[in-house]
Amino acid sequence: MSRVNTKEIGVALLGFGTVGAGVVETLQKNGSLLAARLGVRPVLRGIADLDLTSDRGVSVEPGLLTTDGAALIARPDVQVVVELIGGSGVAKDFVLQALKLGKPVVTANKKLLAEHGAELHRVAEENKTEILFEASVGGGIPIIKALREGLCANRIECMYGILNGTCNYILTRMEDEKLPFDDVLKAAQAAGYAEAEPSLDIDGHDTAHKAVVLASLAYGCEVPLDKVNVAGIRGLAAADIAYAAEMGYRIKLLAIIRGGPDGVEVSVQPTLVEHTHQLAAVAGVYNAVLVVGDVVGTTLYYGRGAGRAATASAVVADLADAALNLRSGGRRRDPGTAHAQSPVLLRNPGDIVARNYLRFSMRDEPGSLARVATALGAHGIGIDSVMQQEAPRNAEYVPVIIVTGPAKDREIAAALAEISHIAGVTDRPTVRYRIEDFD
Amino acid sequence: MSRVNTKEIGVALLGFGTVGAGVVETLQKNGSLLAARLGVRPVLRGIADLDLTSDRGVSVEPGLLTTDGAALIARPDVQVVVELIGGSGVAKDFVLQALKLGKPVVTANKKLLAEHGAELHRVAEENKTEILFEASVGGGIPIIKALREGLCANRIECMYGILNGTCNYILTRMEDEKLPFDDVLKAAQAAGYAEAEPSLDIDGHDTAHKAVVLASLAYGCEVPLDKVNVAGIRGLAAADIAYAAEMGYRIKLLAIIRGGPDGVEVSVQPTLVEHTHQLAAVAGVYNAVLVVGDVVGTTLYYGRGAGRAATASAVVADLADAALNLRSGGRRRDPGTAHAQSPVLLRNPGDIVARNYLRFSMRDEPGSLARVATALGAHGIGIDSVMQQEAPRNAEYVPVIIVTGPAKDREIAAALAEISHIAGVTDRPTVRYRIEDFD
Repeated sequence: MSRVNTKEIGVALLGFGTVGAGVVETLQKNGSLLAARLGVRPVLRGIADLDLTSDRGVSVEPGLLTTDGAALIARPDVQVVVELIGGSGVAKDFVLQALKLGKPVVTANKKLLAEHGAELHRVAEENKTEILFEASVGGGIPIIKALREGLCANRIECMYGILNGTCNYILTRMEDEKLPFDDVLKAAQAAGYAEAEPSLDIDGHDTAHKAVVLASLAYGCEVPLDKVNVAGIRGLAAADIAYAAEMGYRIKLLAIIRGGPDGVEVSVQPTLVEHTHQLAAVAGVYNAVLVVGDVVGTTLYYGRGAGRAATASAVVADLADAALNLRSGGRRRDPGTAHAQSPVLLRNPGDIVARNYLRFSMRDEPGSLARVATALGAHGIGIDSVMQQEAPRNAEYVPVIIVTGPAKDREIAAALAEISHIAGVTDRPTVRYRIEDFD
Repeated sequence: MSRVNTKEIGVALLGFGTVGAGVVETLQKNGSLLAARLGVRPVLRGIADLDLTSDRGVSVEPGLLTTDGAALIARPDVQVVVELIGGSGVAKDFVLQALKLGKPVVTANKKLLAEHGAELHRVAEENKTEILFEASVGGGIPIIKALREGLCANRIECMYGILNGTCNYILTRMEDEKLPFDDVLKAAQAAGYAEAEPSLDIDGHDTAHKAVVLASLAYGCEVPLDKVNVAGIRGLAAADIAYAAEMGYRIKLLAIIRGGPDGVEVSVQPTLVEHTHQLAAVAGVYNAVLVVGDVVGTTLYYGRGAGRAATASAVVADLADAALNLRSGGRRRDPGTAHAQSPVLLRNPGDIVARNYLRFSMRDEPGSLARVATALGAHGIGIDSVMQQEAPRNAEYVPVIIVTGPAKDREIAAALAEISHIAGVTDRPTVRYRIEDFD
C-alpha cells in the first residue's frame, strides 16, 4: 500500500508567528505520516513574514524565508496558501489575492472571517476555489468539520460555546482560588495566557468573532458582527462567582447561537451554567462547543482552544483537505451552497427569554425586598429563589441575590431601570447575568 | 446561490430496521437542506429487507421496497449502497458485491468491520471505491471523521471510549439508584435500552468491535479481534459501584486503545475513573471518546451513542461524503493509505501497567490484611489505600478494598492467585477492576 510517487502540493505560509512555527514543526514531525495517510505530500515552498530573524524554536532552510508575501502566493509551484498573519488588514489582501488566483486558502483568522466572511466566500465561489478555517474556532477541536460535514444531515437548533481560553482560564482560577479578577488577569499575562492588551479576549470580542463564524456556518453566510450582543468578563466580581457556586452554578463566558422562528440569537456573555452540566466541567484554557442538531440531538466537542500545537493541528488538517481536494480536481464542498440563501435574520435581543441572576445592593431595612419584588412582578418577572447572606454589622446596604424565572430581556432591563430609580432601595447598579438552562 | 440542476445520487438501502427507518425519515425531513448544502441530492432508489410489511413509523412508496438486495445493488441507477442489515453473514456478501461493482458502501456494521475490515478495505482499494463507517462507532458523534480527517496531522497516542449506551445506562442507574445489576438490566430491557439477549452489549463484545474499528483507524488496518482482552459488566456488584464512589471514582465500561513502543493495547473492561474526569460525567445512553494526539493534545467527543435518529445522522453524513466524492470523480481518502503498512502489533496484556481496585472478602481476624499485603508486596505491588467498612456483627469474612499502586497485569494476577491459596484468608474470588489515571 506504499506509494512511490506521492504527489506534492506546494504550500505558501504567510505569517511566521506562534501558530506558523507550530505548522512548520508539525509538518517536519509528522509530514511523512501525513503523506502516507493522504497519498499527497504538502511541501512548504516559502514562509513570508516581515520579521525574518526572531527565533521561533524551529529550524527552517533560510531560502524558504521571504518578506514578499504577494510574490510567494503568485509562485506557480504554490497550490495552497496558509494565512496566519491575523487581523483584517494585509491578511485580507493576501487572502483575496490567493482566492482570485484560484488557490485554496487555509486560515485561522476569525476576525477576518467574522468581518468579511461573506465577501471572501463569494470570491472563493467566483474563482471556483475554497477557504478552509478549522483553526479559527476552538483551536485543535475539529468543530468546523463536525458542523459542516459530520452533522450535515441536521438542522442546527442551537450551539453553546466556551471559545476563549484566556477567559476560561481566568474564570477557572478565580473560582478555584477565590481570587479577584485583576490579580488573575495579571497572573495570566505573566504566564503568557493573556495578552498585554487583553481587551480582545476579556471583553468578549474574540468569542464574538468565533460565534459569528459558527453562526454563519449553521444559519447563513452573513451574520452582522456589529449586531451581536457582546459582554465580556472584565471586572467580574469574585463575589458573584462565589454566590453562583453556592447556588450550584459556575459562571462561563458563553457564546450562544440559537435558531428560532423569530430569527437567530447570536450573543456572548458571562452565563451561569449548572455545575453538573458538561460545559461547567470545562476548565482552564480548554474550549468546548455543544451542538444540538434536530436529528442527532446533543453532541459536544472539547479540546485545547488555542496554543501553538493545537492550532497547528487544525491548520494542517485543513491543508490535508485542500490537498485532497486539489488531487481530486478542485473544491469539494461549495462554500456558497453550504449556507442559507440570504443573510441571517438576527433575533431582537430584547425578545430573548432567560432566567437571570441578579445581585442587588439593597438597603438593609424592612420593605426593600418587597419593593424590588413588586417592581419585578409588575414586569411579569417571577422569582425562583432569593439568597441573602448575613450582613456585616451596621452595613447600610447588603447583597441580595435574586434568581428570576424565565423573562424577556427587555422586561428585565426595564424592571432594573425602575428599581434603580426607587430612592434609597439600592445604592449601585444591579449585577445581572444570564442563566442558561439548555432546554 | 441556488442550484436548479442538482445532480442526483442513487442510493440503495439494505436493511429496513430501526436505523434504516431513521435514514429514510432523515432524508425525507432534511433532504432539501442536504441537497442545498451539497449541490448533490441523495435519492433512494430502493429499500431491501426480508420483512416488507412491518410498520416502521415512516411512509415509503411501496414500489421502493424489495426483498432482492443483490438486484437492487446491481441497478445502474444505484451509485451508493447503505448497509444496515448488521452481522457478518449476508451483510458481508452485499458489501462485497457493491465494492466489486465499484460502488461506495456506507455501513453502521461494527461487527463486520471488526471481523473483516482488512478484507473489505482491500476489496474497496482494488475496486477504487471506499467504505464509509461513521455510524459504526459512537452513534451520531462524528468520531470517525474527527479521527481520520480532523486529527490527521496527529499520531494518536491513546483513546478511551464509553462506546456502549446499554452498559452506560445500566451503570448510571445502578449508581444513581443504588440498584443491583439484574434489576436494572430487566428495567433496561423493558424500556428498550437492552436486547432480550443482552450478551453482545453487557459482555463487552459490542464495545470490543468498536474498539477494533477505532484502533485499526489509528494504528493499522488489521487488529485481530480475537486477541482483544474483553470483560463486560455482567454481574457487576452494586457494592463495588458504591465503594468506588466513596473513594471518588465511577465505574465505566471503557475501551482503552493506547499505542506504545511494545505495541498497541486494545482492551475493554469495567474501569474506575475519577469522578471529576470528563468521562465520568458521561451518563445514561450517551457515549464519549477521548482522543489524545501528539500535536493537538486531549480532545473529547460526546453524544448519543445509539438510537434511530442519532445513528441515521451519521449514516446520512457518510452518504453526503460518498455523494460528494462521486461528484468529484471517485474516492477521496484511500482506505489503504489511511492505515499503517502492516498488521498492528498488540501489546502483551500481561505487560500492561495500571493501578487496580481489589475487593477481598477477607477473614475478620488479625493478620489477614498483613498476609494479603505481604503477597502483594512480594510481587512488587504497592498499596495506595485500604478501605475496610465496619463489619456486620459476627461476620466471618468482611469486604476489604485495596487500591494498588501501578503494577503489571501479570503480577496482579499472580499475586491474587497466591492469595486465593492461603487457607482461610479469603473465602471467594477477589473482585478486581482497573483504575485509569489518564496520564
